[in-house]
Amino acid sequence: MDLAAIREAHERIRPHVHRTPVLTCATLDRRAAGRQLFFKCENLQKGGAFKARGATNAVMRLDDATAARGVVTHSSGNHAQAVAIAAARRGIEAHIVMPSDAPRVKRAAVEGYGAHVIACEPTQASRLETAARVVEQTGGTLIPPYDHPDVIAGQGTVAIELLEDAPDLDAVIVPIGGGGLISGVTLALKELAPHVRVFGAEPRGADDAARGKASGKRVTQQTPKTIADGLKTTLGDLTWPVVRDLVEEILVVEDVMTVGVMKLVFERMKLVVEPSGVVPLAAAMTRRFGELEGITRVGIVFSGGNADLDALPWARGGFGGTARR
Amino acid sequence: MDLAAIREAHERIRPHVHRTPVLTCATLDRRAAGRQLFFKCENLQKGGAFKARGATNAVMRLDDATAARGVVTHSSGNHAQAVAIAAARRGIEAHIVMPSDAPRVKRAAVEGYGAHVIACEPTQASRLETAARVVEQTGGTLIPPYDHPDVIAGQGTVAIELLEDAPDLDAVIVPIGGGGLISGVTLALKELAPHVRVFGAEPRGADDAARGKASGKRVTQQTPKTIADGLKTTLGDLTWPVVRDLVEEILVVEDVMTVGVMKLVFERMKLVVEPSGVVPLAAAMTRRFGELEGITRVGIVFSGGNADLDALPWARGGFGGTARR
Repeated sequence: MDLAAIREAHERIRPHVHRTPVLTCATLDRRAAGRQLFFKCENLQKGGAFKARGATNAVMRLDDATAARGVVTHSSGNHAQAVAIAAARRGIEAHIVMPSDAPRVKRAAVEGYGAHVIACEPTQASRLETAARVVEQTGGTLIPPYDHPDVIAGQGTVAIELLEDAPDLDAVIVPIGGGGLISGVTLALKELAPHVRVFGAEPRGADDAARGKASGKRVTQQTPKTIADGLKTTLGDLTWPVVRDLVEEILVVEDVMTVGVMKLVFERMKLVVEPSGVVPLAAAMTRRFGELEGITRVGIVFSGGNADLDALPWARGGFGGTARR
Repeated sequence: MDLAAIREAHERIRPHVHRTPVLTCATLDRRAAGRQLFFKCENLQKGGAFKARGATNAVMRLDDATAARGVVTHSSGNHAQAVAIAAARRGIEAHIVMPSDAPRVKRAAVEGYGAHVIACEPTQASRLETAARVVEQTGGTLIPPYDHPDVIAGQGTVAIELLEDAPDLDAVIVPIGGGGLISGVTLALKELAPHVRVFGAEPRGADDAARGKASGKRVTQQTPKTIADGLKTTLGDLTWPVVRDLVEEILVVEDVMTVGVMKLVFERMKLVVEPSGVVPLAAAMTRRFGELEGITRVGIVFSGGNADLDALPWARGGFGGTARR
């Protein structure tokens, strides 16, 4: 993948996805060591997450004969919605393998776009096995959630738009689950604006990228435990080398911070964000990031907004929220 | 007031307020008789509401000697925050008279901007009396919430931006409380794009504008009962003639609809909106509006986002929401 592939992806997906706004918030700047933060609002993207970009690019690139057999994927939610939407636009069938513990709101949304949902155990192994079985049964094409060049190129389009709306950034912070978004963004920036420093942000309970970078060896097994359900996956064959070699550092965030920041974004920015989506902002507020020198303007990707509104974390009495029941 | 005054206001406030985005949502279009809806997101405005525009225009127009004595206002919340923010930017004191039943989140926000809050009884009479007393005590200038030319001109800037981002509108729907927003928008459109039909939207429990237009006589007294707390006020001396003569029709909405639509906007648009802010969208979904001919492209003003996140209406078990406790 290179910038040319990402620019091609941008042209391809443009009619099908939203150009999301870049917003600012003086209150949040003050809480992030006074730096200027520029929020790329992919929570406002179709399907509620950046995933629409990669999935749309991959689905629209299929030739007609291949596309006619439909598409298959496995996902904890946002990629699932994205594939469902892209398939619906192309007029083809989508089979989505989802872990049985995926948030209700995400499953309902996928079914709302007309896709077939197949439940699996909430393990990486069960996802892969079930998806392989569905591919065999349907003859459909697997659209992986992150470890695929077309998907990574699609996610990289976030960087093109962010730089257009917020030039002269010194750094960007991107969440890391499987690494598709940060890989696309990093590869785009490497050519577009190589001076921009790229940071990953991970929850403590799914910090495979941080541990992998620390040891120099990819971490492929973990038992994730975090409220940021979109970031539970580990890095892939394609995304690991990008994170290892081109991402400056991984910032690790506690869930209690993520929940507090999520409520702050609802309150002050009037945006619905999901826990995974605000991990980069929580990272921007860490002491570690605040201490780094030479950084004034920071791009932050709000990666998704598919929060369960009937079970907002600050209403549960856990995570230090202000429980009312 | 005319378009020239509104354009001047736009230049004056531009450095101090956000240029809010105009967003679209295919799901919501389908639920509004298939029309194309263009949402002017003033919930993303500074202070969480369009009120920043009018208040900033009024505060920035004061001469230095007058400004030095500070400003005073009375408001159920959003105008209060707006005056507090504008005063803070100008470096002057703000005294805000708020009814004792104003949402907690709004009072806290006002105090957060450094303004002094003075509580009053939750009646129009008590508000006016208390504000007059504070003006006498402080020598400050009263910045009324809606019935003032500078405030109306500031609110009218919404229409300029909406038309720039969504040309060729056939209609706009604007919420009506005291009528400042709809007056400014209507006066701007009258010159900018006189073919655009202007509709007001009101909750059933505070439908003074609808009753006034029906009878041809302004309704100045009512006992409002609605979840849309920002729309409880009645029309003013300046706003009533605009609504009477230039607004095509007032669409009236039940609270149960407002709450359902509010949750839909959180879920599908990923935006935090307050009940008052979604009344125009609820109006766009009424049978009455759906039956009107010649309307394809509709501008909808999401007027504010200061919802109480610890007491979202669908969590209360009332209003037909999906209670979980």
